[in-house]
Amino acid sequence: MSYEDSRLYRLRHSAAHLMAQAVAELYPGAKLSIGPPIENGFYYDIEFPASIKEEELERIEQKMKELAKLKQPIVRRLAADRDEARRIILEETTNGEGAENAVYKLELLDAIPGGEEVSFYEQRATDKQGQEHVFIDLCRGPHLENTGEIQHFKLMNIAGAYWRGDVRNKMLTRLYGTAFETKEELETYLHNLEEAKKRDHRVLGRELGLFMFSPRVGPGLALWLPKGATLRNVLCDFLQAEQLKRGYQPVVTPNIASIRLYEKSGHILTYRDKMFPFMEDEEKETFVLKPMNCPFHIEIYASSLRSYRELPVRYAEFGTVYRYEQSGELAGMLRVRGFTQDDAHLFVRPDQLLDEFKGVVDLMLTVLKKLGLSEYRVRVGTRDPGETKYVGHDENWELSESAIKQACEQLGLEYELSPGDAAFYGPKLDLIIKDALGREWQMGTVQVDYNLPERFELEYIGEDSKPHRPIMIHRAPFGSLERMIGLLTEQYAGAFPLWMAPVQVAVLPIADRHNDAAEALAARLRGQGLRVEVDDRRETLGKKIRENQRQKLPYMLVLGDRDIEAGTVGVRSRTEDLGAMAVDEFVVKVTAELAG
Amino acid sequence: MSYEDSRLYRLRHSAAHLMAQAVAELYPGAKLSIGPPIENGFYYDIEFPASIKEEELERIEQKMKELAKLKQPIVRRLAADRDEARRIILEETTNGEGAENAVYKLELLDAIPGGEEVSFYEQRATDKQGQEHVFIDLCRGPHLENTGEIQHFKLMNIAGAYWRGDVRNKMLTRLYGTAFETKEELETYLHNLEEAKKRDHRVLGRELGLFMFSPRVGPGLALWLPKGATLRNVLCDFLQAEQLKRGYQPVVTPNIASIRLYEKSGHILTYRDKMFPFMEDEEKETFVLKPMNCPFHIEIYASSLRSYRELPVRYAEFGTVYRYEQSGELAGMLRVRGFTQDDAHLFVRPDQLLDEFKGVVDLMLTVLKKLGLSEYRVRVGTRDPGETKYVGHDENWELSESAIKQACEQLGLEYELSPGDAAFYGPKLDLIIKDALGREWQMGTVQVDYNLPERFELEYIGEDSKPHRPIMIHRAPFGSLERMIGLLTEQYAGAFPLWMAPVQVAVLPIADRHNDAAEALAARLRGQGLRVEVDDRRETLGKKIRENQRQKLPYMLVLGDRDIEAGTVGVRSRTEDLGAMAVDEFVVKVTAELAG
Repeated sequence: MSYEDSRLYRLRHSAAHLMAQAVAELYPGAKLSIGPPIENGFYYDIEFPASIKEEELERIEQKMKELAKLKQPIVRRLAADRDEARRIILEETTNGEGAENAVYKLELLDAIPGGEEVSFYEQRATDKQGQEHVFIDLCRGPHLENTGEIQHFKLMNIAGAYWRGDVRNKMLTRLYGTAFETKEELETYLHNLEEAKKRDHRVLGRELGLFMFSPRVGPGLALWLPKGATLRNVLCDFLQAEQLKRGYQPVVTPNIASIRLYEKSGHILTYRDKMFPFMEDEEKETFVLKPMNCPFHIEIYASSLRSYRELPVRYAEFGTVYRYEQSGELAGMLRVRGFTQDDAHLFVRPDQLLDEFKGVVDLMLTVLKKLGLSEYRVRVGTRDPGETKYVGHDENWELSESAIKQACEQLGLEYELSPGDAAFYGPKLDLIIKDALGREWQMGTVQVDYNLPERFELEYIGEDSKPHRPIMIHRAPFGSLERMIGLLTEQYAGAFPLWMAPVQVAVLPIADRHNDAAEALAARLRGQGLRVEVDDRRETLGKKIRENQRQKLPYMLVLGDRDIEAGTVGVRSRTEDLGAMAVDEFVVKVTAELAG
Repeated sequence: MSYEDSRLYRLRHSAAHLMAQAVAELYPGAKLSIGPPIENGFYYDIEFPASIKEEELERIEQKMKELAKLKQPIVRRLAADRDEARRIILEETTNGEGAENAVYKLELLDAIPGGEEVSFYEQRATDKQGQEHVFIDLCRGPHLENTGEIQHFKLMNIAGAYWRGDVRNKMLTRLYGTAFETKEELETYLHNLEEAKKRDHRVLGRELGLFMFSPRVGPGLALWLPKGATLRNVLCDFLQAEQLKRGYQPVVTPNIASIRLYEKSGHILTYRDKMFPFMEDEEKETFVLKPMNCPFHIEIYASSLRSYRELPVRYAEFGTVYRYEQSGELAGMLRVRGFTQDDAHLFVRPDQLLDEFKGVVDLMLTVLKKLGLSEYRVRVGTRDPGETKYVGHDENWELSESAIKQACEQLGLEYELSPGDAAFYGPKLDLIIKDALGREWQMGTVQVDYNLPERFELEYIGEDSKPHRPIMIHRAPFGSLERMIGLLTEQYAGAFPLWMAPVQVAVLPIADRHNDAAEALAARLRGQGLRVEVDDRRETLGKKIRENQRQKLPYMLVLGDRDIEAGTVGVRSRTEDLGAMAVDEFVVKVTAELAG
């Protein structure tokens, strides 16, 4: 059942009405416009007689609670004709304030196509003091039966919104709220919102020394600070080793190319609005900043004659590309203008497509598991049978669509089919991750491509000694390092798993006289491949511990006289004091943790 | 003694005259212009009556040998005045061909300032057949005493050259030759030239699958093929580990920035002609491709308040930069338009300058040793006392110049002082490497910088709680990965040391039935961290061995029935067949080689 058909949707719609009723009672002269349910709640756009502050939401919420408790039945009323509808709006919905108050509703009425029925929803009750409360709204519905059912809600914030979304119209005040079926759902939602704020990767990125932006470098261009660069290297090293095991070959290509490369690939035509301005000069060749790595890998493939025995060829590159996103669309590391793709392109024979596709999906699942992103769904984008925009032969499309489905089935992966979601050049598979807060993120994609091999006239010599065209697969398990590390920062709230943590162990000498021993211990641990820092600042141990906890380091090792004498360290994990441990014991412990 | 004052210089000058004498005898009507000694030999620019071919050099060389054997004394003649000089040119130097033949010499005479003496060199003898040979040339000298001393020479090639280097003048034919004092020196020189051709990194780069260029990507923009990318990674991993040990911190920064960054740094003014055209668009901010990493590292330094306790800060990045070299100046990987610097910037307090400079030089020497580049000289570039272009206080310059000298002395490094070789912003140290063929290459540089900290108003809070300005050190031990790998390819003629080789071991199954065992062996060796390929093509063993030898792999392991049964492999190094060896024995052998 879709959200639009659910009881939750009706609940939120009725909550919007309830909010409007409260506003109408509290703010005489407030003019209502529209108030629909939305993804995580509802809103209502209202013209207030005077501007209101966020603090006033509490008062409105309080009034809503009172009105809800009156258990007003919510009743649908059908207007006999337009004239009656007009009369109801003017006389019954404006609290007696007349035409001036009804301006938006009358416009809405006029927008309803002739012949369509016009309905109102009315809620009405008398309170203990004998006062009558009534609210009637022009509305298509549907709604709940009774305002008494609206129990678990919260008003969230206010914002400005132009009437009908048009900047030439008046700016109204939008009140946002949310409502759930149960108290627990509401609390989880509010908790997750708080959590999301605490986990905001832009804030944590700065606090933990991961990355920064600078106005002089420009919007959307991240600078990786030492700890972020280390995390990046750790992720790249892991993926690189995984890829080498699976027969990928590293390549490295420039960040710019002559415009001719992208003319040949077709990107100049299809992708120009996402490209940075060209580097043009009357006397020089025109160069462009690369938005995609693929044409470079194709040039490498095409640089020598390939035999069917060489295929599949799998070129992998951590390739940094640049795309001109509008500045309003930039969002921390999640949407940037320069990013490094963990890109690879596979050049395969048709008879290898299934196995290679399976191999790619298997790699992606291995990566997600290692990253601790265990909740995901799989979406397969295929052709829309009614569309004609697709390049390539029907038989190829059938081959690759069935290869993708078979790959999923052989890997025991459930997938949803999304017809029409294929690119014009081939079908694809998307992995959509659900994070610790239940938010969904579209991450890695595997894409079959018949177009570029055609445009670049790629070939291999088959067993029949004749030239054949290879199929390309584009893939990026992380998607981009920027986006992935942004996501991981939020997923772990900066408390990265041990293997990933930029600094794994901090050694805390208690006093200056323990500094040498601390350095010696750090050197010993570094010899074991651990990333270790010594915090030898002249601060109290308590302050050092608090600050290192704030830095979310996996382990702190406290070192004092007794430890040095006994060859032990005081071990603290992020969450608990594990007490004194022999250094060897600690090494065994973290080694086991890293291996597991 | 300088080259210009050496006997070798006179020898080559006399050899140029001898070549001109031979040409005058063999090609009546040939008009001589100028013929100086140059770095590795000499040339003479001549207008031939008809164009000549490279094959004719042998005939000229033969004639030179005959003329040398005549032991013609070489005699200096001073013209009494300009008129006499003119007469000598017209009557004695033209073999009776008159004014038309003397056109260049007359122009040269006119260019000699009035009052300066005008000299000629004359060589003359009669051969056994009674024929007289004579050659007189307008020349400042000096020369040898006798043509009989010119014994070890060779004519090399011909090229075109405009008279006086001006494209509006006539194109003359330039004959190149070389001459040495001894037969051995000549042979070594010719051998090294041949070697240099064989070692040409552009040829080897392609043959060994290291790198390529593509017209569609553009001149000077290298694409790294799998083996080259692997070599690159090996070098980066080595340097990165070495740097981490020494307290460097990795950072990663974009390849582009807003033009504001380079306005602030001053590069827009001082470096614009080396920058790619800007990315300009009326509606957008202007972006530029980065020619230098330093301003980005400065932005990171400046992003938080630094205490004197934090310094030195050492940011390292394998940063890819782009510089618009003229296409005529591009030369394989040695001069490119896009390259990756093994860059780092140190921000240090004045009292740390000596130690940090010493640390950097020590790192560079460690790198050279590891790379097998053991011959080098050190040049220290200081201020020219007569110049005023330098920024920064005198006391700072004295501090840093003396720090550089002291660093060298404490490291026991001999250095040559090069006054006036400092940049306007600080003194520097260059390492100049001598390669296996005796050619010199300017590689890594360490540069002190007072300018950028000033421009960006960098600070740290000192022990006195007041702000102070740090000093910057720029450094790059490899210089660039492109140039260094180009050099290493020539140094080793593609036969890289084991630790560096992109593929260290090839496993050669003798027949198809040994393929599985070969894969298992490869997996076992890869588990030991070795880079291994299996050559399971259906070719004869002999052909496989030859091809892998051509690929200059350090080890080949031949695997057949007997080996599989006995747990051995047939080991071949690049130079010899080492016979059957237990697999463990081979692993011990290469592990020892890698450790040593």
